[in-house]
Amino acid sequence: MPEEINRQWVMASRPVGFPNEGHFELREAALPNAKHGEVLIKLEYLSIDPYMRGRMNESKSYTPGVQIGEVMTGEGVGVVVESRAKGISTGDHVVTRTGWQEYATAHVSAVRKVDSSVAPVSTALGVLGMPGLTAYFGTLHVIDPKPGDALVVSAASGAVGGVVGQLAKLSGCRVIGTAGSDEKVSYIVDELGFDAGINYKTENVSERLGELCPDGIDGYFDNVGGETTDAVMEHLATGARIAICGQIAQYNDVEQAMGPRNIRALLVAQAKMQGFLVFQFVQQYPAALERLSKWVSEGTLKYKEDIVEGFEEMPKAFIGMMHGANFGKLLVKTNA
Amino acid sequence: MPEEINRQWVMASRPVGFPNEGHFELREAALPNAKHGEVLIKLEYLSIDPYMRGRMNESKSYTPGVQIGEVMTGEGVGVVVESRAKGISTGDHVVTRTGWQEYATAHVSAVRKVDSSVAPVSTALGVLGMPGLTAYFGTLHVIDPKPGDALVVSAASGAVGGVVGQLAKLSGCRVIGTAGSDEKVSYIVDELGFDAGINYKTENVSERLGELCPDGIDGYFDNVGGETTDAVMEHLATGARIAICGQIAQYNDVEQAMGPRNIRALLVAQAKMQGFLVFQFVQQYPAALERLSKWVSEGTLKYKEDIVEGFEEMPKAFIGMMHGANFGKLLVKTNA
Repeated sequence: MPEEINRQWVMASRPVGFPNEGHFELREAALPNAKHGEVLIKLEYLSIDPYMRGRMNESKSYTPGVQIGEVMTGEGVGVVVESRAKGISTGDHVVTRTGWQEYATAHVSAVRKVDSSVAPVSTALGVLGMPGLTAYFGTLHVIDPKPGDALVVSAASGAVGGVVGQLAKLSGCRVIGTAGSDEKVSYIVDELGFDAGINYKTENVSERLGELCPDGIDGYFDNVGGETTDAVMEHLATGARIAICGQIAQYNDVEQAMGPRNIRALLVAQAKMQGFLVFQFVQQYPAALERLSKWVSEGTLKYKEDIVEGFEEMPKAFIGMMHGANFGKLLVKTNA
Repeated sequence: MPEEINRQWVMASRPVGFPNEGHFELREAALPNAKHGEVLIKLEYLSIDPYMRGRMNESKSYTPGVQIGEVMTGEGVGVVVESRAKGISTGDHVVTRTGWQEYATAHVSAVRKVDSSVAPVSTALGVLGMPGLTAYFGTLHVIDPKPGDALVVSAASGAVGGVVGQLAKLSGCRVIGTAGSDEKVSYIVDELGFDAGINYKTENVSERLGELCPDGIDGYFDNVGGETTDAVMEHLATGARIAICGQIAQYNDVEQAMGPRNIRALLVAQAKMQGFLVFQFVQQYPAALERLSKWVSEGTLKYKEDIVEGFEEMPKAFIGMMHGANFGKLLVKTNA
């Protein structure tokens, strides 16, 4: 019976540098059963996010890495097919940390019900999920933008960056985004309402930032690190706030990358650079989701999904993202 | 009449790399007169501080640089020899920004009276002046140490570092300092009460920090930048706070120095790195000086002065500091 099979993507070996398909292995496991207090979820969408690259390393990060032979880590949204938990019924949609697999069990305390009347359930992995919350807290709590601020966000067409820029616009900022293609730059300006965009692959980012932010950059939401961040550091306004969210430019480095020693810019500008993880704001998730949901349902907050069809495509989608191939929040539709 | 001559050190040319004596020129000017609201000060001590190197550059910093042919910038303490200002009498000791010269005029609004009964007037340039205030606000306001925190300070035997470590001890921290000689390391441990010291010239700083801070570094007061800061970044505890005060390791760089791209450490540790200038806390100077004065007069807060005799020695003293030759707060006694 095919229903009794649960397909899973496991990490076959640890990548050095960029991952390739050989680092993943498709495995078939028995369908799990929900224990007391748990639900069994048939997954419809699985999330692909940059942070997953860090989990493939052995070195210390903020949570333990994936072990060789273990199911790859990640979030998913799906429908409950068996419930042994109070308050959740068969047929409910839920989102939780599931790993890269077609079915998953989870304790009721770890799942969040998804209201499909607000927006498609897939948004629970994007604008109304971890990326949206990351943008929300990093922008509104770490950067704390003020009307009139010049705010820059890198990877601006991505799942996090697109929300950052729109929240900054709502806060009265002038918003500039960097992205890796003219199409992405057009999208953030024409669709999302950014004031300007810079194609970091074809333009001189520092020069353009100097032109676009003659009074300096007040806020910077950093998803990428590397040379884009170097360029921003040359244009900090007094009292600038930098939120460090991701450093994807370095996730696949084999050797320690070197860059200019530019910390003095923080001194001159009396600026703050702060690393944050969305988890530190967990107490405030419900209030943030309520606001984000309202803005999405009103159409105030726009989002873009890049949906890859088929569970078997997960490694390919992930590898593509590491090379900037996705456009919008990257999801895999399991078609299970 | 020798009283009518005011000797001044002017910047003769802009240094590229380390300054040498040729970048300074001794000039004789006429003795200035106090205008209405001003005092004329005969300077007794002039301060030599690392930040002055930045003022010799043409490039933008937080205040304009010294121009070629202009008197070098700096603070001094001396006795009022002529007063046309209310509230200040001949014979009073005052501290203000005077420049490198034997006499200076200043408006009453820019000077601070110094009470010689609390401590020697020279302390108005050190522990009870700008360096002490820098340590005070950087430690207590930027880092905000908590009892039990592991706090690291670089250039720990210096005018700022020594105060930082003692304030952190008062705050209940375990304190580790880095310095450039065994003598300086002994001083911070034996005289100032630090828990440990590291000689960055002879020891592996990262290894030693790992041993001394097995649970990570909660606070770091950075006076130097460069490799010492790289080492600290490898050992950040969750929620670490870094105060960027100075980057003397790079002040004499001719080319942009390169270092490891380690911003991701801020992300993993959810840490904050903040550049600050003491001036941003100007409203709180009186309250801070009151506390610092009390601690100094009680003997709770110790300090060390490195006093060079003779106004003509200023460039030599400044150049020596750039190579780490001073031990404690560097001052020049004018002997005027």
